[in-house]
Amino acid sequence: MIKVAIMGYGTVGSGVYEVIKTNQKSINKKVGQELEIKYVLDLREFPGDPVMDVLTHDFEDIINDEEVRIVAEVMGGLHPAYEFTRRCLEAGKSVCTSNKELVAEHGAELIQIAKDHQVNYLFEASVGGGIPIIRPLNSSLTADVILEISGILNGTTNYMLTKMAEEGLDYNEVLKEAQAKGYAELHPEADVEGWDACRKIAILTSLASGNQVDFRDIHTEGITKITKEDFLYAKKMKRAIKLLATSRKVGDTYCIMVSPALISRDNPLYMVNDVFNAVEVVGNMLGASMFYGSGAGKLPTASAVAGDMVDAARHLGKIITLFWSPEKLELAPVEESSRKFFVRMKSAEEARKYFGNVEIWDAGIPGEIGAVTPVMTEAEFAAKAEGADLIGMIRVED
Amino acid sequence: MIKVAIMGYGTVGSGVYEVIKTNQKSINKKVGQELEIKYVLDLREFPGDPVMDVLTHDFEDIINDEEVRIVAEVMGGLHPAYEFTRRCLEAGKSVCTSNKELVAEHGAELIQIAKDHQVNYLFEASVGGGIPIIRPLNSSLTADVILEISGILNGTTNYMLTKMAEEGLDYNEVLKEAQAKGYAELHPEADVEGWDACRKIAILTSLASGNQVDFRDIHTEGITKITKEDFLYAKKMKRAIKLLATSRKVGDTYCIMVSPALISRDNPLYMVNDVFNAVEVVGNMLGASMFYGSGAGKLPTASAVAGDMVDAARHLGKIITLFWSPEKLELAPVEESSRKFFVRMKSAEEARKYFGNVEIWDAGIPGEIGAVTPVMTEAEFAAKAEGADLIGMIRVED
Repeated sequence: MIKVAIMGYGTVGSGVYEVIKTNQKSINKKVGQELEIKYVLDLREFPGDPVMDVLTHDFEDIINDEEVRIVAEVMGGLHPAYEFTRRCLEAGKSVCTSNKELVAEHGAELIQIAKDHQVNYLFEASVGGGIPIIRPLNSSLTADVILEISGILNGTTNYMLTKMAEEGLDYNEVLKEAQAKGYAELHPEADVEGWDACRKIAILTSLASGNQVDFRDIHTEGITKITKEDFLYAKKMKRAIKLLATSRKVGDTYCIMVSPALISRDNPLYMVNDVFNAVEVVGNMLGASMFYGSGAGKLPTASAVAGDMVDAARHLGKIITLFWSPEKLELAPVEESSRKFFVRMKSAEEARKYFGNVEIWDAGIPGEIGAVTPVMTEAEFAAKAEGADLIGMIRVED
Repeated sequence: MIKVAIMGYGTVGSGVYEVIKTNQKSINKKVGQELEIKYVLDLREFPGDPVMDVLTHDFEDIINDEEVRIVAEVMGGLHPAYEFTRRCLEAGKSVCTSNKELVAEHGAELIQIAKDHQVNYLFEASVGGGIPIIRPLNSSLTADVILEISGILNGTTNYMLTKMAEEGLDYNEVLKEAQAKGYAELHPEADVEGWDACRKIAILTSLASGNQVDFRDIHTEGITKITKEDFLYAKKMKRAIKLLATSRKVGDTYCIMVSPALISRDNPLYMVNDVFNAVEVVGNMLGASMFYGSGAGKLPTASAVAGDMVDAARHLGKIITLFWSPEKLELAPVEESSRKFFVRMKSAEEARKYFGNVEIWDAGIPGEIGAVTPVMTEAEFAAKAEGADLIGMIRVED
């Protein structure tokens, strides 16, 4: 029998409890022995919930219990998750987590600490909820040089953008609706400002490159400036507006950006709607492959955490190789990356004056037109846009 | 330095050689030491090809060389691939393969032999070419009970069906074209009769269930009876015709079928065209996730074999757990599985007479109509169809 603990009984934590209890028989079979939840750590009480039998308010119960070999850290946030994770690893317990903030900030360090203590730090649930992407990237695509990773990595914003596209609603309306349905938080900045997607693409690029990407270095724009008028143009252009996180290999490093983008129907990410997430990975030998599924939600995320716990249980005393060194990756400057830009301006003349040979789109909005610029670098675009009266701007990706 | 051998210098074998040579630097970094190709085994000569430096015609050179720790078996076919693989594993060499025939036939046995000798038998390339599906199924989705696997698992037939849909060509015309382009073999039975997809869904279901699925037990139909007229109906119905391999959990076992199916636009497999493959996996906790990419082709498949070689190199002396016991899985009878059926008959009256409350489709073909039956079991359909004059039949899946 292998005893485990779950730290945090919020959405994901109660999901992990539910996954293990519901699938206990099949999980035991896959582990080769029984996996028993000995503790659930939470400061709250849950009267009437069977979790009360194993509930503790004291982290020391878990850390001091040598029987506990695997711990799920599903508390979220940096503190005390970081301290608890460190202490668990140092005490010889493997840790499985959904905490992308912590993984993005301290991933390389915690992997090293785990290695030093012959245990594992696993974080499949930190990116893409239930979509297996960490393990394929780390263990399957290893013969390839990864040329590009691009993804829809945040379910909340993808739900909001889908609603805006389908129902012609404006940003504030869909935000309110998403909050009412529990798809967006009361303080939605982490999602709508792109910070969540930024941490996830940082984790994926760290694994692709083998070096530490500091998420603070990533150019990140959210969806707060997207309006219902933008979707009128998108419809005309037969494109979708998505919050894209892209990481492209440039020389020995990567150029990473998180921003809204107009993508074409030929892009496999075009059809990824609602709370679904998808990640496209392009290897120099493999070509393109895509991973698609529920990007968030209690049970899909919990399933990924519990899957890591099964893997940790199968690897007691053995280290699962993770290719992520603490050495920092200096990112390529975004200013040098090239693409087309979609701009909304007062007239076609204006657009031509600032951006040259543009493609004009008319969405029937009085007093403005849309224009797609030729391919240019971010720096060139910024220089040309200086002094121009832009009603809106969205990047164009094919 | 880790020395490896490649058995077979055909399409995949020369691809593995190319992948390792092209990405030597990044592969060495991921392995943590140099991965050197010491032998390539093939009976032929390749004058002028740099492979000549390491070419051998004699398997004994590889088996007797203790320096060789990892062998890629990319010969295809059952013999001598089976004997060579066995001997390599027994000699303490890990084997990585793209040989789905061998994996479907002897997978459980070879995994056990590998385990007994503290080495690994890895076969990511055997299903879905470059799409990582074996490793996610084996290591990531382990907390879930897998309710369904459905996939487009054969690139040749998907290319042919896509051509038929887009260009209105008939089966024999696209087959000739596919053969001319090298997408179909001169003897195309393994692809067009569904045998290849059958072996792949057998492998996936073995891993999902943990028991051995005998591919001979699987109800398998190919695409040879699909005509250009069928696509006229498909277009009217806004559906695609795909060669689907599906495996659905029924009680403690699975019901598996390979056959053409009319799938709706809402099915994520709808948009999988040309030589691409995709696998959808539904877990009881995870919900649906999908894996998409190049299903075949020299470099994608070779990339998967080489990725397994990297994993084998990282795990020298350590066993990568694979959950596939030799115990046979008795499949659920296909006769009891239910769905709608699309039939082509002489008249709506005839269709109603045999199948009751059908939905009628008119594709403008003189002397016939299309009809979609209510949901019924395969056994019920067979009984009702007795004596009916069916011009064609395709199963309907949502």
